[in-house]
Amino acid sequence: MRSYAKGYRAERSLTHKLAEMGYMTIRAPRSGRIGLPSPDVIAAKDGKLIVIECKSRESAFTVRAEQLDELTQWANKAGATAYIGCKQSRKDWKFLHLSDVVANGGNIGKKFIEDKGISILDI
Amino acid sequence: MRSYAKGYRAERSLTHKLAEMGYMTIRAPRSGRIGLPSPDVIAAKDGKLIVIECKSRESAFTVRAEQLDELTQWANKAGATAYIGCKQSRKDWKFLHLSDVVANGGNIGKKFIEDKGISILDI
Repeated sequence: MRSYAKGYRAERSLTHKLAEMGYMTIRAPRSGRIGLPSPDVIAAKDGKLIVIECKSRESAFTVRAEQLDELTQWANKAGATAYIGCKQSRKDWKFLHLSDVVANGGNIGKKFIEDKGISILDI
Repeated sequence: MRSYAKGYRAERSLTHKLAEMGYMTIRAPRSGRIGLPSPDVIAAKDGKLIVIECKSRESAFTVRAEQLDELTQWANKAGATAYIGCKQSRKDWKFLHLSDVVANGGNIGKKFIEDKGISILDI
């Protein structure tokens, strides 16, 4: 099952967790975007900038090339560390490095998340 | 005169201008905020992070202490450079350093903007 409300709650929880870790965070709703590339969550701490595209999915999925390109721009132009954040029911967020996801053609499944995903404490 | 639409258009124009200058930008609508401090615009380029609280005002005004505190947190915890961006009709944006605005008790008027405001090219 996939729902907007579920994704929203998961993202909200993520931003609060990052705030507890000392990050300043901002969540950009899709509706607030104005034709410029932007990730779901931006977090910054001591000059370190993180951008996250958030995905709440139970089964395998593919990140759109356009979104990968957005994140690549944030990495290359802004100097951010870019992640795909994956949230599965009853599991903690796992974070995939953009480079790993790009190398895998944007494809993300359970095994890939298990192999490559890192905890929020390691971002 | 002060209107939401006018402020919105001015902010949109600002984010596009920053994008032209090579910044990655994000605009956070008030509605997208979830109880965490967040400025109106975040821009980043080559690891340099800028946060801007945007004000479209024709007459003198005072920035709320709560907003100054938000920006101070972004400066101190995230390592961002924080500005109050001021837009007056038929004039370009001017940017005031947070420290100048704090030192002035949050009060901003035309003379203050003329004395302390810098151009977008100097941020």
